[in-house]
Amino acid sequence: MDIKRSGSAPSMTGPADWFTGRVRLDPLFAAASPARAAGNLVTFDPGGRTAWHTHPLGQVLIVTAGRGLAQRWGGPIEEIRPGDVVWFEPGEKHWHGASPATAMSHIAIQEALNGKAVDWLEHVTDDEYGAATRA
Amino acid sequence: MDIKRSGSAPSMTGPADWFTGRVRLDPLFAAASPARAAGNLVTFDPGGRTAWHTHPLGQVLIVTAGRGLAQRWGGPIEEIRPGDVVWFEPGEKHWHGASPATAMSHIAIQEALNGKAVDWLEHVTDDEYGAATRA
Repeated sequence: MDIKRSGSAPSMTGPADWFTGRVRLDPLFAAASPARAAGNLVTFDPGGRTAWHTHPLGQVLIVTAGRGLAQRWGGPIEEIRPGDVVWFEPGEKHWHGASPATAMSHIAIQEALNGKAVDWLEHVTDDEYGAATRA
Repeated sequence: MDIKRSGSAPSMTGPADWFTGRVRLDPLFAAASPARAAGNLVTFDPGGRTAWHTHPLGQVLIVTAGRGLAQRWGGPIEEIRPGDVVWFEPGEKHWHGASPATAMSHIAIQEALNGKAVDWLEHVTDDEYGAATRA
């Protein structure tokens, strides 16, 4: 049994290669082999979002605060709110982030396959994201 | 992409075979093969706790509210509070629950091995739990 106390892990900033806008990552748990799931609390300032990406074994988001957006490639932009749980299929290209005016926090959980839990792709352009305000 | 909206899943009651006291289970996500992690929000009324149990691939608890207790077999009873993240090793016999006077909620995440995510054992007796108030 290991207890990681609240406040004992430093916050990190989402790298500009993988995120747009200001995004904070608070690590919750790392994969402890043979388990393969890891989890982070991710907080997006208004307008902040991930780049397009995929996960080899899918991803679960548990929205904890604010008002967010999520989209799979080719699908509509969907609004997500606290308590909503979002599932992305393995290999499904998608992004998620805050709404234009309101921040959003979610717990993100994904399993690693051969040591890899995500494949990052191109950024979500302002045009693509702007479609959210017209949805 | 699948969005399970907040409030769309009925709450369940923790079965008396596996829990002591009043315990509510709110399902968050089920394992979607080939992914194998599942998650539930679990809320223990004061005095409520799991039976002793083990997980074949371990378990993560993210405490979200209240004041709780957790213990591994042979170890001290530890207090857990919101924001704390608890990890139990694969096969590690343990229990978790509320404190005697204050409820506790946590998100519990565990991975299934050959379709099984938990092995339930004997209940935590009042004597074992009462040790918490003397800790």
